[in-house]
Amino acid sequence: MSSQASVVLSDPLSTASSLLSPEMVIAASKRIAPFIHRTPLASSELLNQWLGHDIIFKMENMQKSGSFKIRGALNALLTLKEQNCLPEKMVAFSSGNHAAAVAKVGKLLGIDTTIIMPSFVSKVKQHATKGYGAKLILTDTRPQAEAMAAELQAKGVWLLHPYDDDTVIAGQGTACYESLEDGAKPDAIFAVCGGGGLLSGTWLAAQLLAPQAKIFGCEPTLGNDATRSFRSGHIVGFDATPMTIADGARTLKVAQRTFAYLQKLDDFYEVDEQDILYWTQWLQHVLKAVVEPTAAVPMAAAFAWLKTQTQKRRVLVMLSGGNIDTTTHQKIWEKDYLANVPSL
Amino acid sequence: MSSQASVVLSDPLSTASSLLSPEMVIAASKRIAPFIHRTPLASSELLNQWLGHDIIFKMENMQKSGSFKIRGALNALLTLKEQNCLPEKMVAFSSGNHAAAVAKVGKLLGIDTTIIMPSFVSKVKQHATKGYGAKLILTDTRPQAEAMAAELQAKGVWLLHPYDDDTVIAGQGTACYESLEDGAKPDAIFAVCGGGGLLSGTWLAAQLLAPQAKIFGCEPTLGNDATRSFRSGHIVGFDATPMTIADGARTLKVAQRTFAYLQKLDDFYEVDEQDILYWTQWLQHVLKAVVEPTAAVPMAAAFAWLKTQTQKRRVLVMLSGGNIDTTTHQKIWEKDYLANVPSL
Repeated sequence: MSSQASVVLSDPLSTASSLLSPEMVIAASKRIAPFIHRTPLASSELLNQWLGHDIIFKMENMQKSGSFKIRGALNALLTLKEQNCLPEKMVAFSSGNHAAAVAKVGKLLGIDTTIIMPSFVSKVKQHATKGYGAKLILTDTRPQAEAMAAELQAKGVWLLHPYDDDTVIAGQGTACYESLEDGAKPDAIFAVCGGGGLLSGTWLAAQLLAPQAKIFGCEPTLGNDATRSFRSGHIVGFDATPMTIADGARTLKVAQRTFAYLQKLDDFYEVDEQDILYWTQWLQHVLKAVVEPTAAVPMAAAFAWLKTQTQKRRVLVMLSGGNIDTTTHQKIWEKDYLANVPSL
Repeated sequence: MSSQASVVLSDPLSTASSLLSPEMVIAASKRIAPFIHRTPLASSELLNQWLGHDIIFKMENMQKSGSFKIRGALNALLTLKEQNCLPEKMVAFSSGNHAAAVAKVGKLLGIDTTIIMPSFVSKVKQHATKGYGAKLILTDTRPQAEAMAAELQAKGVWLLHPYDDDTVIAGQGTACYESLEDGAKPDAIFAVCGGGGLLSGTWLAAQLLAPQAKIFGCEPTLGNDATRSFRSGHIVGFDATPMTIADGARTLKVAQRTFAYLQKLDDFYEVDEQDILYWTQWLQHVLKAVVEPTAAVPMAAAFAWLKTQTQKRRVLVMLSGGNIDTTTHQKIWEKDYLANVPSL
């Protein structure tokens, strides 16, 4: 990965420090625009009325491949293409939104793409990957999947990291950049932390178009490695995957590359599983959109922040994705949280 | 109701027969446009790829109040307003999308609105009604709710019928009219039949902008009164509410007013409960939109029709609404239909 990253860091737009120049997000936005949906900003009159604030959602659940992840993957590959380095073959190991995004990008750009997943991954995710035309290799365990990916990488197949990559970070930042271009005008921006790619890009985008806005990261309490890292000033991680319902935030730890941005955020919020489920139900109800539990985490965090505010606020919530398998749907609707109307 | 209807039938635009002039839909579209969302047309690349046809969805689940029902209610009230007959007080009895629509319209137009529901209706529907500012009266049974509404009507409170009303029919037709204006260009149009208002309006709209398109009605097999009426040439109904998961199609029978349009349709399809659940899951998955079971019925019907086609077709599916309570969510996700990819 380091040789791929150095190509980008040598770009004249990048700064001398380890942080990218925010202009990289503008370049990424122009680069990927022809291939993605410019997803809408949405809001709910009922929710705003109940909370007494304006909540604006960037609907990346309606993005191609069902999440924002395609932005980073596309920016990475299109950057390579501009440098005449587009790989013929690509591999990713993932059971989540990164897998779907890489498969979709492979199809868009005509790259021979292999996705390696453990066989316990739901059939619907397997079908989606194959539907995008990627080869699917199933292994018994996740370590086996990683080992097989490394094997392919050693043979010259290009491996796309989900967040430890400057072009990926710049790409993820385009979701926030679009929101600000489209007039979100937020007092505060909330995004979830998995590996930190979305938050890093969001911070960069805000420097350009909303430098006064506060930017908050958030995580499930069960997967609070980034929060603990933020508070302690150095990266701490989990040894075993935290089994939060928010499967996009199960990452063991952030990267040095993303931690440099996370340290610049205004604060981090931790969200309990029950609050994740509460907001997953309510966002589906008021937005009529399929919202995955990971995407409900920033709404729960925004709610906690709004409780502390004494004047009316405008909040931008990055609604990261909408990919949910049947088992997770069942877990989401096990209890009835819709009986309790949101109220500050 | 008859006196209200006669106001409209005397309109010079209406035909001598019992059918409205299609131009009534154009007038309705202009009338209600400032108050509603122009909902998008959506499609799924994956679904189209799997079926080998183009399926276009009119996303009325994203309409204000969560369904197309607000179109008819608004057109009815705004027509009265133009005639300087806007009622001060309005009542509706309903446990479904009509209730939410009437409550919302009451709020928009400043009408003192009462919704009467049986108390077993889910808390979330009760909250939504109150959220729109309507008074909510709970009764023990549905007959009690109807009796109380009739009592209020006798006292001069305006009662809005969900489908046996010309202005409602013309209003419901605006959903299809917008779709055709926005370039849907369908070979066939599919809409679900409750009382027949949506299908009647859809037929009218198609006469204007897609006279060559086939128009199909559809129902749950469990609630197949309109299909049986269509086949026999006279209205037949149920004595007791058919308990299909598609709660928008639980109507006991259609009205003479709507049956006049239904007889002009190309055919009717009946859909089993399992197929309704299958398509509810799959539409949520590929569209990332909350789709109520009633709105999945026309997709199931379209699928059955496409099976008989020998060349590539463009189909418009009226996705009627997205209001689902927790118990229904649980029923939708009880089994895993996402394991079986749609294929003709």
